[in-house]
Amino acid sequence: MTLIDGKATAAAIKAEIAEEVKQIVEAGGKRPHLAAILVGHDGGSETYVKNKVLACEACGFKSTLLRFEDDITEEFLLEQVDKLNKDADVDGFIVQLPLPKHISEQKVIEAIDYKKDVDGFHPINVGRMSIGLPCYISATPNGIMDLPARYNIETKGKRCVVLGRSNIVGKPMAQLMMQKRTPGDATVTVLHSHSENIKEICREADIIIAALGQPNFVTADMVKKGAVIIDVGTTRVPDATRKTGFRLNGDVKFDEVAPLCSYITPVPGGVGPMTICSLMKNTLSAGKKEFYK
Amino acid sequence: MTLIDGKATAAAIKAEIAEEVKQIVEAGGKRPHLAAILVGHDGGSETYVKNKVLACEACGFKSTLLRFEDDITEEFLLEQVDKLNKDADVDGFIVQLPLPKHISEQKVIEAIDYKKDVDGFHPINVGRMSIGLPCYISATPNGIMDLPARYNIETKGKRCVVLGRSNIVGKPMAQLMMQKRTPGDATVTVLHSHSENIKEICREADIIIAALGQPNFVTADMVKKGAVIIDVGTTRVPDATRKTGFRLNGDVKFDEVAPLCSYITPVPGGVGPMTICSLMKNTLSAGKKEFYK
Repeated sequence: MTLIDGKATAAAIKAEIAEEVKQIVEAGGKRPHLAAILVGHDGGSETYVKNKVLACEACGFKSTLLRFEDDITEEFLLEQVDKLNKDADVDGFIVQLPLPKHISEQKVIEAIDYKKDVDGFHPINVGRMSIGLPCYISATPNGIMDLPARYNIETKGKRCVVLGRSNIVGKPMAQLMMQKRTPGDATVTVLHSHSENIKEICREADIIIAALGQPNFVTADMVKKGAVIIDVGTTRVPDATRKTGFRLNGDVKFDEVAPLCSYITPVPGGVGPMTICSLMKNTLSAGKKEFYK
Repeated sequence: MTLIDGKATAAAIKAEIAEEVKQIVEAGGKRPHLAAILVGHDGGSETYVKNKVLACEACGFKSTLLRFEDDITEEFLLEQVDKLNKDADVDGFIVQLPLPKHISEQKVIEAIDYKKDVDGFHPINVGRMSIGLPCYISATPNGIMDLPARYNIETKGKRCVVLGRSNIVGKPMAQLMMQKRTPGDATVTVLHSHSENIKEICREADIIIAALGQPNFVTADMVKKGAVIIDVGTTRVPDATRKTGFRLNGDVKFDEVAPLCSYITPVPGGVGPMTICSLMKNTLSAGKKEFYK
């Protein structure tokens, strides 16, 4: 069994990005600039945004963090989005989700100029990804696609089960894994809350991508010997032994599943670091105007 | 075994549309107007466009057909698209594919105002469909989704195999069938040229949607007793006994598969009529500004 080290893989990719940025800047080019809007004080969001700022530093990007209290109006937030759309110095930006309930997330997502939409949530980027056109691919699925690439895990013709059909992980994950590309070309089945015979279907899978947000959902009796397991779950579970009072729990019962696998991602340290790394890749692409002029 | 009568179902839906149009016009509203651009003289395209014009008549729509020779430039075609985008009387329009090789189909598709893109091929509509937002859904998958609805075929929790991963049928079909909607909520597996064990996987399916364009690909040994079979294939096969010199051949070996099924679509007369009917539904939605203002 090989433990997939997302932290080390992400560090390697960030080092490659930093090297490329160095060359761009030395050649007189512009340093890529990522901006982030953070509304309110959600614990998870604070952590993610802090990590994004740190990742920007590691990559040699310029980063800007715009913070607002959670009583701002939707109109005000849309104005800030519009400012970033028009700011020629900002190559890409994100609005950290979730947003306060009185603000429409979809409206905000669609207000972002798709050419700067490094989160890949705008319908144009979602659509282009589905069709297989160059675009910003959302960070978690894109980061996961780097893992088979870096670990030389064959996906072509393999049976891949995606657990979960969320817009930000399950659906794009399925689309990427089934696409005519490498990694990709897998035979994908998507399982969700209405699926039957989940255990049996999982047992046929060469690759399981678990993105349900249900701690310990994938148990040993669902896993074929030699399978590859990617665990996208990051549920905060209360844990009095931790300083923070919680620990991150994956969708996979790691202890019993790991011995069966050829490869498995841990939680934390698996998919998580890849997600942020993927946002950095998108920011580099934005800086280079790789997908859109 | 019940033969799914796409022709009759489409006729019923078109009659419903015609009734709604009548009411709209009687209430002083605008008659929906579909325009189509046809470039060159491809046999299939001629037939499709002719049928679309006839369907418009049946629905009480205004229709306009713009015909150009296949030596027009891409620039000229883009100008025509722009004119239709700006023509306030045109609610929706399509550019019949395929286009001559010297014209980029993707460029033309993206030039169409997504608010008038009743073919649902623009990345914005593709993306919105994927996320589950209201939008124009491309005609073939949308037409197929009407069949379980009209025949009361349960899809929730059923195992659905989609054969083929094309952008216009396989991929959207999979996305619609897996979505939280009715019909939908199925457990979907997409099979394609790199898939292994195709026969075995098909045999587990409650619903098979065959969209490979390979005549007679689905044989009796691939079908579970009681399965629902939707045949999207329409390959033109030479046939000296026909006046046209060809017949349309589905992806399913109908004679041997039909006796096993609970429901099956014939070719022709199954999915084909539903596709055009679905374009009519999109045109009505365009006329009513149902998705976009």
